[in-house]
Formats: sequence, structure tokens, C-alpha cells
Amino acid sequence: MNKQPNIILVGAGPGDPDLLTIKGQKALQQADVILYDALVNEIILDLAPTAKKIFVGKRRGIKAYSQDEINRLMVQEAIENGNVVRLKGGDSFVFGRGYEELEFAHLFGIPVQVVPGISSSISVPALAGIPVTHRGSSNGFYVLTAVLSDGSLNPEIKQATQTNATIVILMGLNKLAEIAAVFSEAGKKTEATAVISNGSLSNQRTVFGNIGNIVSRTKSERIPAPAVIVIGEVVKQAGLLKSFNSHQFVFQN
Amino acid sequence: MNKQPNIILVGAGPGDPDLLTIKGQKALQQADVILYDALVNEIILDLAPTAKKIFVGKRRGIKAYSQDEINRLMVQEAIENGNVVRLKGGDSFVFGRGYEELEFAHLFGIPVQVVPGISSSISVPALAGIPVTHRGSSNGFYVLTAVLSDGSLNPEIKQATQTNATIVILMGLNKLAEIAAVFSEAGKKTEATAVISNGSLSNQRTVFGNIGNIVSRTKSERIPAPAVIVIGEVVKQAGLLKSFNSHQFVFQN
Repeated sequence: MNKQPNIILVGAGPGDPDLLTIKGQKALQQADVILYDALVNEIILDLAPTAKKIFVGKRRGIKAYSQDEINRLMVQEAIENGNVVRLKGGDSFVFGRGYEELEFAHLFGIPVQVVPGISSSISVPALAGIPVTHRGSSNGFYVLTAVLSDGSLNPEIKQATQTNATIVILMGLNKLAEIAAVFSEAGKKTEATAVISNGSLSNQRTVFGNIGNIVSRTKSERIPAPAVIVIGEVVKQAGLLKSFNSHQFVFQN
Repeated sequence: MNKQPNIILVGAGPGDPDLLTIKGQKALQQADVILYDALVNEIILDLAPTAKKIFVGKRRGIKAYSQDEINRLMVQEAIENGNVVRLKGGDSFVFGRGYEELEFAHLFGIPVQVVPGISSSISVPALAGIPVTHRGSSNGFYVLTAVLSDGSLNPEIKQATQTNATIVILMGLNKLAEIAAVFSEAGKKTEATAVISNGSLSNQRTVFGNIGNIVSRTKSERIPAPAVIVIGEVVKQAGLLKSFNSHQFVFQN
């Protein structure tokens, strides 16, 4: 191969394939190799019919590759085959470990570019009818991951209870009881809360409640992962728009 | 006109026209009317050659329309002409007042759909080489507007100084001295800080520093608005990638 090695980190968005950017689409069309995660909607891969596609995500809790292996594979594919797209759900730099991959590629002198993606942290609430900011309700929002790399609860969640921001927690469904306990202890038992599963897809489901009842409601509704947790006054806005669902957005083709 | 009134709130992304989503592109292609803001890159409007285009933004500090007038115009155009796209820079629900427009349209029974956009809050730091999250540096990020509707400094900024999150402040360039004072008073004078102007465009510029020197550095570099302010440990990551700029992302067409 004579091709120069090149890596592009592309955010695939929350799931709806049309929430990929035009720039992401172009990057995929020119890819020689695509390394993609479990949260990437595989329909997006059809944009690159001839590229070599490697699944490096996690299925049924089992990782196909460790992060170190992904780093090495990405660099190796770039050196051997040229244009590598590293495709991740959401945005590569929102708990996507994109920067670690960028740093690793940098060690080998391989140029890395980034194509931002629609982050679930903002878009999934929006598609459930919840604006992360709204005059009079919220002048800011705080996005957190539920767990640290060692599996423990992110201590930032406790700090977040001390703000008036909308709180958005990603990858937190199986820590929901612990998260609710932290907010309860901070005196926020009545804070409005929503859990949104499969945001942007046709099987999107939302459970509304408050800190005090969200755990039991989510359990009884058997809400599946992946889910986004939203806590704050803005969650109450959604009541106006119960039928509001962007996956019902039908184009006249 | 026989067309059903319909409104779609579309986020145009940070500026680079290719950072529009495929869904946003489709919405524009089917629009009868487009109401657009000052931060929207007008190249995007070429996607809708036959639509009626109305500029409702602010130029040289003067607003073309008040928010109330925008709400009324949007509804009137939908009733008279059918498919209205309300096009905003970034994402409609990140300080975009999209939800106010949605509530207003709801009063008239007009269906509103939302197409999320690439928010500057995440993408502009990324395109300057700064990840808003990074293992070991940041397990969360806090996005704020600099000012409230009355022009005063957002009190959430003070709360934000008490967290370990990456802080991202939008629309804050002419409040930079006040913001830096709040962080200094909280003992964060050495906190790494970046100001990124015209993010994602070919004239993107970034000033790096810390809370103590960012005001003078930004002034001496004559950095223009709009700008995104990033405060936190992750700003130091950018050093690795001084040449890293996504607007240099060149496709082989």
C-alpha cells in the first residue's frame, strides 16, 4: 500500500443514522478501514460498502478488544491500509476515550483528525422533549459518567447535587439506585427525573418521575440499557409534549 | 396553500457547513421557509435553493427581531406556507431558546420536531484539540452561558468553581474579566484556560493560558467573538496537538 496512514475519529451520534454529520458521512465514504463500537448503528456502515469493518465494541458484557488492543489495531490498520475511521456512538470526546486513541496515534506520528458527533448527553433529552437549558429553569447543564474506570460511582455526582444545573448522567442505568441515594441524601428527593432508553431510535422509551420514585418506576417498566438519566427542573417541561418524539420525524421521500 | 403547518427546529452546528447532520440537510431540502440566526453559516442555506429565507438574528449588536416577534413570525409562516425550519447555530436547546419557540407553537397546535445540532460546547473545544472529558483529568463537564437575560453574570459560574468538572462557558468573551475574577476568588488562578474564537471555521483561533493571564492574552491577541471559554485540566492536553485543527480536514473529492 502506498497510502499515507491517517486516522479520523468520527462521532456517529446517538443511534438514528441520519444524526451522523455530513462530514462524518464523507469520512466514511473515503475510509479504507472502520473500527466501530457496539453503540454505533450498523446501518451507518452501509455508507462505506468497500471498507474493511472491524467490530471492537462490547456485546453481552464481553469486550471484543481491550482499549490497548484497540489503540494498537487502529495504528496497525492505518500503517497497513491508509485511511482509518474510528467510529463511536455519540461524540468521541464525551466519555468516548477518543483522546487516548489520539495520544497513542501521536506516538507513531500518524495524523489524527476529529469529526464531532451529536452527543447523547444533549440530544437524547431533547428527543424526549427535555431541553437541557431553558430560561427560568436552567442556565447550565452538567454532564457526568456514572462510574469511574475502577467501577466505583463518580464522585462528581455528589458535587453536582450542589448546583442548580440540569444533571445528565450517561451509562448509569445499573447505578441508578446509588445515584438516587446521593441526590436523596442531598435533600433532592423531589427533583424531577427522567430515564431515557434507546434515545433517537424507534424503540426509544422514557420513564418520568422524581428521585424518590425513579428507581422503582424504571424497574417496573423494565427499561433496557443504554439509557440517559436527566435530573432537574427542565424534566417537567416534557409534560407539555408527551407525543413529541423525533423518531416520528417522517420525510416525504 | 393546502400544506399542513409544521415546524422543525434544526441545529446547524458550530459553523463548518459539513457539521450539519444528514437529518438537518433533509429538513432544509423540504423547507418552504427558513428562519435563521446570525451564527448560522449562510452556505448551509444553499441546501434549500427555493425556500423563502428570513434572517432573524443579530448584526452589529442590533436584533432584526425580538424573541416574541420570532415566535409569531415562525407560527405565521407555518400557517401560511407549511414547512418552516427554524435554523440556529449549534443546538437549539443549548442556550438557543428553542424550547420557548416550541412552547409558543404548541399554543397554536402546530407540530414541532427537533433535529439536534452539533453543540459548540463540546465540538469547539474538540476542534481546538481539547477533549471535554479524559480519563484521569475529567469525569464530567459543566456547560454554562456567561450571562442571564438581564445581562448579569450567571451565578452558576460561581457554583462551577466548586466542582472538578471541565467548565465550558458560551457567549462569554466580553465577560471574560468577570469570569476570571470569580475563578481567582475561588483560588483557581492557575487553572488552565483556553479561549477559542470562530471554532470549526477556517479563521478559528485559540488563546491558551490560565485564569491569571487569560484576560490580557486574549486582549493582546485581539480575539473576536463568538468565542468558547474552556477551563480545566483538560486544556493542558491540547499542547500535544498544536497543529491539530479540524478545518484542515481535506477530503479527496
